[in-house]
Amino acid sequence: MTVVMFLFFLAASTAWGADAASTKAVTMAEVLAASTPEDWRPVDPENILQLELPAGRVVIELAPMFAPQHVANVKALVRERYFDGLAVIRVQDNYVVQWADPEAEHAERARKIQGAKKTLPPEFERALDPRIPFTALPDGDVYAAEVGFSAGFPVARDPRSGKMWLVHTYGMVGAGRDNAKDSGGGTELYAVIGQAPRQLDRNVTLFGRVLQGMELLSSLPRGQGAMGFYENASRHIPIRSIRVAADLPPAERSALEVMRTDTRTFQALIESRRNRREEWFQFAAGRIELSNVPIPVRVKK
Amino acid sequence: MTVVMFLFFLAASTAWGADAASTKAVTMAEVLAASTPEDWRPVDPENILQLELPAGRVVIELAPMFAPQHVANVKALVRERYFDGLAVIRVQDNYVVQWADPEAEHAERARKIQGAKKTLPPEFERALDPRIPFTALPDGDVYAAEVGFSAGFPVARDPRSGKMWLVHTYGMVGAGRDNAKDSGGGTELYAVIGQAPRQLDRNVTLFGRVLQGMELLSSLPRGQGAMGFYENASRHIPIRSIRVAADLPPAERSALEVMRTDTRTFQALIESRRNRREEWFQFAAGRIELSNVPIPVRVKK
Repeated sequence: MTVVMFLFFLAASTAWGADAASTKAVTMAEVLAASTPEDWRPVDPENILQLELPAGRVVIELAPMFAPQHVANVKALVRERYFDGLAVIRVQDNYVVQWADPEAEHAERARKIQGAKKTLPPEFERALDPRIPFTALPDGDVYAAEVGFSAGFPVARDPRSGKMWLVHTYGMVGAGRDNAKDSGGGTELYAVIGQAPRQLDRNVTLFGRVLQGMELLSSLPRGQGAMGFYENASRHIPIRSIRVAADLPPAERSALEVMRTDTRTFQALIESRRNRREEWFQFAAGRIELSNVPIPVRVKK
Repeated sequence: MTVVMFLFFLAASTAWGADAASTKAVTMAEVLAASTPEDWRPVDPENILQLELPAGRVVIELAPMFAPQHVANVKALVRERYFDGLAVIRVQDNYVVQWADPEAEHAERARKIQGAKKTLPPEFERALDPRIPFTALPDGDVYAAEVGFSAGFPVARDPRSGKMWLVHTYGMVGAGRDNAKDSGGGTELYAVIGQAPRQLDRNVTLFGRVLQGMELLSSLPRGQGAMGFYENASRHIPIRSIRVAADLPPAERSALEVMRTDTRTFQALIESRRNRREEWFQFAAGRIELSNVPIPVRVKK
């Protein structure tokens, strides 16, 4: 059965770019069932953050290829226990969850930073390096010249400016900032919990993506204040801790595997979402938007 | 001040389609502040559903222009109290909330339908009538030939097939169905709580949009079963009642006004979201996707 399926989606990916109706299309479930160990990558525990909320754990993969300074600084903050005991202070419907120091505005009570940096230069975009594998989506994008996936993350590229950048899709994690573009640095973090807010692209530094536990963030009660801030500190959701997985004993690490995005299997997965073949669908869109392509994650066996 | 602002956004809308950087751009807050009573429409109480959950009220506007049979049948179901005491049985993260009869599969215990219909022919799309005002978005769409707004709802149009249809964006409400395309009818309803699932367009009948109370649906605990169904009936969120606003005494109606989508003011609003001028923004996208355009709602004074 597995062998048959494998041939199935090789056929689909060989025909990539051709008229979808002429390919032997498969469903995502079939693509996943037929995937081989080589289609998955373990995530380096140095690039995993484990955010512990009262309701459970949120696992974030860091993207040092796109925001090396922010990744390094967030890890430095984590390692000096900056976040432990801080809180989710903002949940804006269809937009973002934000966690930070509720006392950040009160110099005397604010959490002190030790070795990490308070602010950093922006990493809104980076040089487009053609050596970085890029799986392009074939149906275009409203906001960018090219969109697709590099290194397991959703990205946009602009050959004209020679830049590429991470894209604000569901579950992406960034470093909030004030009005000055170099006022962020990793002390205030946010995750996207709604429609991809693409207007934020190239305005703020993204540095990771939630791999597991998104529902713990997205189902939090919405803040009733302006921009979804909780008006009463009693509503804050405490952050018990954030840890770099590599710093934990192996038994306490969330060992996850993410589907590689530079493979024929991932192209077959994209095709399975462009043209849905599950029995329920009466009409196959034949197109797909970046934000609607899932990047599968599984627990490492 | 109001007069000045009005001239401001007349200038912006006159230059509609021109290079945004050359227009006198305004923010959405400024567009709203400068709007006149004519920019808003009261919603006919015959087209308002009030869904009462333990946490509060969700207000839905019906779209008879797009799904007349489904709107009529959902109102018939509401009026025979079909939904009262049923429950939210499914909350799938980044996808949909669904409410229905938890006992629908058990013929003996299932809620009985009296005068309403159990199923209806699909209303996935309708004839493109050029007399229906249509405010087109200028930046294209990944899924459809044309997208924009008609009668206060997000729509797509295909001049080639001569069809138009409601689009699955955040807060849109539809009638679930089984695999057969005529197996829906309004007994199982859903609302979009995440990234616009555009693959559902033209696959299922949309018939309305949440105007108020979205956060009561989007923040519900996610179901742990397949497709986000709650595995244990004790998790179901009871529906106290659904009423057509017109059937209630005026004091119990949610009297809301929605910004008209066929005006210069709404075009100015779109422009204010295509090119964000709030101080925080370093970079204006100059483009916008259908799902990122808000349709403002306010309480009627």
